Amino acid sequence: MNPDPVPHRLWGGRFAAAPAPTLEELNRSLPVDIRLWREDVEASRAWARALAGAGVLTADEVQRLDAGLAAVAARLEGGAPDAADEDVHTLIERLLYEEIGALAGKLHTGRSRNDQVSTDARLWALRAGADLAQEVRSLQRALADRAEAWLDVLMPAYTHMRRAQPVRAAHWLLAHFWGMQRDRERLAHALERVSVLPLGSGAIAGCAFPVDRAALARALGFREVSQNSIDAVGDRDWICELVFVAALIGTHLSRLAEDLILFSTEEFGFVRLPEAYTTGSSLMPQKRNPDGLELARGKAARLAGAAAAALGLLKGLPSAYQKDLQEDKALLFESFDALALLLPATRETVAGLELDPETLRRALADDSLLATEAADVLVRAGVPFREAHGAIGALLRRAESEGTSLLELPESVWAEAHPAFAAGKPRLSPETAVEARSVTGGTARAAVVRQLEAARAALGR
Amino acid sequence: MNPDPVPHRLWGGRFAAAPAPTLEELNRSLPVDIRLWREDVEASRAWARALAGAGVLTADEVQRLDAGLAAVAARLEGGAPDAADEDVHTLIERLLYEEIGALAGKLHTGRSRNDQVSTDARLWALRAGADLAQEVRSLQRALADRAEAWLDVLMPAYTHMRRAQPVRAAHWLLAHFWGMQRDRERLAHALERVSVLPLGSGAIAGCAFPVDRAALARALGFREVSQNSIDAVGDRDWICELVFVAALIGTHLSRLAEDLILFSTEEFGFVRLPEAYTTGSSLMPQKRNPDGLELARGKAARLAGAAAAALGLLKGLPSAYQKDLQEDKALLFESFDALALLLPATRETVAGLELDPETLRRALADDSLLATEAADVLVRAGVPFREAHGAIGALLRRAESEGTSLLELPESVWAEAHPAFAAGKPRLSPETAVEARSVTGGTARAAVVRQLEAARAALGR
Amino acid sequence: MNPDPVPHRLWGGRFAAAPAPTLEELNRSLPVDIRLWREDVEASRAWARALAGAGVLTADEVQRLDAGLAAVAARLEGGAPDAADEDVHTLIERLLYEEIGALAGKLHTGRSRNDQVSTDARLWALRAGADLAQEVRSLQRALADRAEAWLDVLMPAYTHMRRAQPVRAAHWLLAHFWGMQRDRERLAHALERVSVLPLGSGAIAGCAFPVDRAALARALGFREVSQNSIDAVGDRDWICELVFVAALIGTHLSRLAEDLILFSTEEFGFVRLPEAYTTGSSLMPQKRNPDGLELARGKAARLAGAAAAALGLLKGLPSAYQKDLQEDKALLFESFDALALLLPATRETVAGLELDPETLRRALADDSLLATEAADVLVRAGVPFREAHGAIGALLRRAESEGTSLLELPESVWAEAHPAFAAGKPRLSPETAVEARSVTGGTARAAVVRQLEAARAALGR
Amino acid sequence: MNPDPVPHRLWGGRFAAAPAPTLEELNRSLPVDIRLWREDVEASRAWARALAGAGVLTADEVQRLDAGLAAVAARLEGGAPDAADEDVHTLIERLLYEEIGALAGKLHTGRSRNDQVSTDARLWALRAGADLAQEVRSLQRALADRAEAWLDVLMPAYTHMRRAQPVRAAHWLLAHFWGMQRDRERLAHALERVSVLPLGSGAIAGCAFPVDRAALARALGFREVSQNSIDAVGDRDWICELVFVAALIGTHLSRLAEDLILFSTEEFGFVRLPEAYTTGSSLMPQKRNPDGLELARGKAARLAGAAAAALGLLKGLPSAYQKDLQEDKALLFESFDALALLLPATRETVAGLELDPETLRRALADDSLLATEAADVLVRAGVPFREAHGAIGALLRRAESEGTSLLELPESVWAEAHPAFAAGKPRLSPETAVEARSVTGGTARAAVVRQLEAARAALGR
Repeated sequence: MNPDPVPHRLWGGRFAAAPAPTLEELNRSLPVDIRLWREDVEASRAWARALAGAGVLTADEVQRLDAGLAAVAARLEGGAPDAADEDVHTLIERLLYEEIGALAGKLHTGRSRNDQVSTDARLWALRAGADLAQEVRSLQRALADRAEAWLDVLMPAYTHMRRAQPVRAAHWLLAHFWGMQRDRERLAHALERVSVLPLGSGAIAGCAFPVDRAALARALGFREVSQNSIDAVGDRDWICELVFVAALIGTHLSRLAEDLILFSTEEFGFVRLPEAYTTGSSLMPQKRNPDGLELARGKAARLAGAAAAALGLLKGLPSAYQKDLQEDKALLFESFDALALLLPATRETVAGLELDPETLRRALADDSLLATEAADVLVRAGVPFREAHGAIGALLRRAESEGTSLLELPESVWAEAHPAFAAGKPRLSPETAVEARSVTGGTARAAVVRQLEAARAALGR
Repeated sequence: MNPDPVPHRLWGGRFAAAPAPTLEELNRSLPVDIRLWREDVEASRAWARALAGAGVLTADEVQRLDAGLAAVAARLEGGAPDAADEDVHTLIERLLYEEIGALAGKLHTGRSRNDQVSTDARLWALRAGADLAQEVRSLQRALADRAEAWLDVLMPAYTHMRRAQPVRAAHWLLAHFWGMQRDRERLAHALERVSVLPLGSGAIAGCAFPVDRAALARALGFREVSQNSIDAVGDRDWICELVFVAALIGTHLSRLAEDLILFSTEEFGFVRLPEAYTTGSSLMPQKRNPDGLELARGKAARLAGAAAAALGLLKGLPSAYQKDLQEDKALLFESFDALALLLPATRETVAGLELDPETLRRALADDSLLATEAADVLVRAGVPFREAHGAIGALLRRAESEGTSLLELPESVWAEAHPAFAAGKPRLSPETAVEARSVTGGTARAAVVRQLEAARAALGR
Repeated sequence: MNPDPVPHRLWGGRFAAAPAPTLEELNRSLPVDIRLWREDVEASRAWARALAGAGVLTADEVQRLDAGLAAVAARLEGGAPDAADEDVHTLIERLLYEEIGALAGKLHTGRSRNDQVSTDARLWALRAGADLAQEVRSLQRALADRAEAWLDVLMPAYTHMRRAQPVRAAHWLLAHFWGMQRDRERLAHALERVSVLPLGSGAIAGCAFPVDRAALARALGFREVSQNSIDAVGDRDWICELVFVAALIGTHLSRLAEDLILFSTEEFGFVRLPEAYTTGSSLMPQKRNPDGLELARGKAARLAGAAAAALGLLKGLPSAYQKDLQEDKALLFESFDALALLLPATRETVAGLELDPETLRRALADDSLLATEAADVLVRAGVPFREAHGAIGALLRRAESEGTSLLELPESVWAEAHPAFAAGKPRLSPETAVEARSVTGGTARAAVVRQLEAARAALGR
Repeated sequence: MNPDPVPHRLWGGRFAAAPAPTLEELNRSLPVDIRLWREDVEASRAWARALAGAGVLTADEVQRLDAGLAAVAARLEGGAPDAADEDVHTLIERLLYEEIGALAGKLHTGRSRNDQVSTDARLWALRAGADLAQEVRSLQRALADRAEAWLDVLMPAYTHMRRAQPVRAAHWLLAHFWGMQRDRERLAHALERVSVLPLGSGAIAGCAFPVDRAALARALGFREVSQNSIDAVGDRDWICELVFVAALIGTHLSRLAEDLILFSTEEFGFVRLPEAYTTGSSLMPQKRNPDGLELARGKAARLAGAAAAALGLLKGLPSAYQKDLQEDKALLFESFDALALLLPATRETVAGLELDPETLRRALADDSLLATEAADVLVRAGVPFREAHGAIGALLRRAESEGTSLLELPESVWAEAHPAFAAGKPRLSPETAVEARSVTGGTARAAVVRQLEAARAALGR
């Protein structure tokens, strides 16, 4: 009896015939999971040592397996083969046979592709997650740097895409800092849940050889071991969570992108994008389009679709491993790849932003931005805010109908609008309005300086 | 002045510097849109003729452009280059320059990548859509063929995954036929909306040269021309719709898959999957897993995610072309690719299905399947159905508490349950139950024969 | 034996005990499906007549059932009761018992809630779909009306939210017309598929009484009858499709909204929203926020979520009815309700739009909008477009670096930029640029007039 | 001048006319946000004290406002009015005017509905989140309790819905415990991010009165205060995250439901659902449908749709508050409501589960479940696993072709299959197979006992 008649398949003894070509093509995951080859080798080397610890392999066997796996890794380092193997696990076992012969057949003892692939993918995610966190932090630093430079520049802030109140440009840019800070926290929390070792769970029922799973976890850098073998092979929560966090990062990038696209239009003109981060039109010679920022919006939609897909993948599945779960890795890889493209381009765009002080000055001359401040003057005189709001609203209506502006209305009209203005209309300016908001999170210089300090602290050294 | 200083870029005259590497990498769509090279060449050839018709090109120029484009196509046929070009349009224009020199620069007259890419993608979709329709029809035919073979086999039908009533196996399988029929109708309707030519819309404002768009549409096989250039370059409804239809096809495949997975479990055992459409376990030697069917479920989730992403892409975008739209093609291609893998494997799986008559016979022996029929007997005797339902329900409760079955309850119990049974308990069988349902869409032999005929008619010839 | 011990439940004979309160609360769909009461009564009246035709009911019985159902309808017309019934079918059967006693128990003969609810919901959707189509058409008409009024007003058009080329304001507004036209076509196609009668399919196996389903379909206004009872009770494609079409309509509204929000900012200022379609701020007296338009964007996201949910609902379900399907109606109702709020408010907002000619004039003074036209001048002189694009790009770069504009550059610079300009720089204006684009779908007056005619034709009479 | 001409509107001074009815209907959020009235009152009372601390209100004013708000709360406790107010904030301010007159107009000083609604919703979510965590824990406890009772019952475990290996029933049920444990961790992490106070951020620019935000946070039970006013009013990450966590909980419930639906089919028959958690059919008297569990699957799809909608809502929005964000609360409430229905019904269903030992015994008699164990016997004899897998696979093929089972094959066939079996075929049983897997997360009794202890520890006391 030939124990391994089809060397490139991890199963088949019971089968009378090979799989049909259409099924093989559908089933084959190598083009996607080849990205896990480093992790597969690493986990296999650790597994060999664990099997030795369990008395399944001799010291010599471990050494030969380890050398064989190192040789396989060296081959793959030279370029992943365009192989016909079913998946990365099959490829690596086949190469290992090529390196060390029949001993290769001992490596799969007590493990299954079910616990193996989850281990590989988690290892990959722990590293990719750390890289992602680093990229988010770099973007945050770019935001903080630009903000620091713009501490004393004022601009109109908008709600509903309508002028609201003046703020410091630093304050506006830092608004984007904090969402990314939360995303890094989310990512760190998610990675805690990734850092649970499934290896040793077999296909579903655990491992029949006394491997030391805690030692395995330490060797591979996991925080702890899974508590239930059925859950371990069927759990893809962590994929959903990572893909969701990626989608939220993408969403934040899309909001930053929208602000920058809007503020760099010819009409707003507050911000100039660095030319090297814009592109031209094949037809219209004058164009400088903010393609990178638009792609942040577009990719945010795809990332959200991936999050929906990840949840949909699991919905209604029985417990334990089902083949549906194979679709998880494409979602994870695509999501992280999208961010790996977006984050550096966005960071550099932010680093190269310039403000147009003249345009900002002109926009700030719209004194309706000071309407709230005008109402607050009344409040300070003891007038109920609701009454103050109404009085200033009426003044604005008057100004509009007369084709003038709030502060250009004559004293007499102000006095008529509210007795508290009898002594004169208030002296208002963007500067005083901004400085009046000195609470934590406010726009006063000191508040924004404190905010910047908090941002720097959040970045860590 | 060098009119074309960067031959591999369709813009740049106004730019002081080249795009930053991170932006170029993010922006570059060639790896995705290279799939459109045939359509890009074809539409370009038609465009050259249209420009000649508009007096922009001479007969000689058209001929040289046409020959040049044919040469480019021949080169690409030999294998798409791993080029650094921004997109497929840039690649092809660059290759055209290599073939025919400066004349290549006349081709882009009056068009923009905005109308060009939409034209290319629509051409691709019209063909891919026709192929998809054909694949769906092949699966439908396989369903109809198997159904025809199983016309006289009975099986339990299920609602809520609980035994409901007996049906013909043919009837069960045909249930899946009709959803796919509707999907083909949807696809045909969607393709009508794809078949609208955007070319001649320029970047946004239409074409300043009097090209005959109706003739262009005929030449390229489009049904009609777009009516508004802004809409033409910014419309991606048709992508949403195709991706949605693909998702619905995937959903139908997932429901068929679920039936087959369920009915081929060791516990149900009604159906045997062809072995070549199952795969084994790397750990458990006995396994024959329905991987292909499980992937149908898994891919259905990803297809639905793509539909959500396509809608999300457009949400809140201004009219006309925005770069976000570049993300559309990946969604379209991935969706069609998934179905191109799933449909043939599913069709062959269906074609190789076998029933296990013995298991079916045993399952049909559960006479609670005839409870509705028993109630109908009372109805035929003039008893209100609600009363009949209650009477049979009570008999079932009694049978259960006595550890027997409905039809094994003694005559006396039946007589006690309802006066109409005084003359004896009814003679019921799966066969009579099935035959009693002779309305259109019912389970009687004649009804299913008519259904099969309708199915054949729906398939065409 | 009491045939109907729990009059408010359509089942229970076999059950030893009542459902647990937590299950009842979870299971109870009345608060959602009460909206179907009219359709449930109507389909029940038709069913009674069909049962008579099948010999199950006497003429007298039909008459009493019909009168009873009419009485039930009259009661419900007076206000749906806050009843504890499981669902609308149970409620109506209970009320019917109250009206006509035991005869009520004959109505459910041969039908099940499975075919009944699908029939009711389809009836509802056919009507709601017609109303929706009408609302979309009204919005289209408002767009066409405004467009007609603005035929001779020019404005800058944008791609990538950057100034692109001048267009007629009518052309811009009509861009939104055509997407909605496609949506109406989609809706009409979808409603064809809704118009298939499931009634007569029973719970899963068809009806054991010879009802004339074709006559039933005619009586209820359906186009045809379903061909397979299993498919008929388990099919929710049509829900997916309607919810998807609703999501696409919402997406179109969100794009129109984005244009209007953008163009009505203080910075763009092209468009003035009617004040009655804006709202104020509780804090900032000067604000006039485009809340309704923003909600169009927000609701588009929710509609897309509903489309994802509808597909997710079906993914991986076995064929035939499963209780999961109960969740379909909330998705359908919510989607249509959202549009029923959005469409009238959007239509009236469009009807009340005003342009600000002065602001438009100022924006059009940006002569980089004419860069494409300048390149086209060269093309008309025989210069390859790519060379022309480069030459104009270089002029723009020069203008920018010298702080001037394209057309203000001196003749000598133009002549230097390209020999074809030796005779003088071109005379360009927004008007000539717009008129040059006279192809179908272009911006010339005659083309837009033809477009408007096509739009009117699409609206019908 | 009347400072408050429209007492039921928080704005309007600048407006010439009231909002149009269609806009009002679209805009009105009271039917949704009325659920926040308790939180709105509570935050308002705290805000009044903060204003006093800032010197804006006198001690007497605070006292009257506080009493007024208490009176408003008492009125609302008696039943929320079916009011025409725009939102809950407007309603409460109107009622406060009714209670205390013009002083009510002082409460809105320095705050906006933008920071107010976020504060209210976060307060609501902190409480609802704690309740949700408690409900999840109760379900976990029910799982642990049932598991404990089933410690010594064996059952087949499944991968790919095919028999895999024997496990303890306790082990299977506990597999569902751990996903919910992770969900509680996720919820706790998410609630940390909810517990950040936005109040004091005004509409966008912070508060111009020196309120002590840290004290406000402590008074309202928040962990910290927001650092940036623009971010504070525009951040809805926390909604996305809560809705995502809810969707993941729903997904876990759907997987548990699928297991229970499957294992309680007539065909599997391992588990009996408590009758009170099943429902009947209106047509088929014998049915006992697992409606509650099916709804868990269905609602999981809707929850995932809500997660997609929440991300879609934010995509591409500019920073700060936009009206789109109003749609957030419906998503949050619907998600939590769905779980509030599902969790208790699921918990009680679990608590009432019974196993059918006879059916389990029969299923375990399928000795192909021991194939892995048979291969492991060879491994223990030094045979490479891959060779062992092949040998057992061949035996299974032989058994199948001879219509017998693995362990019933004669000794001679075993000996022929592998020399290591020369001494006799192995003695295998489900019991020994289960006990062999004694690693953490394995199926041995001691391992499951340790797992149960870990589960109890995770539940806390």
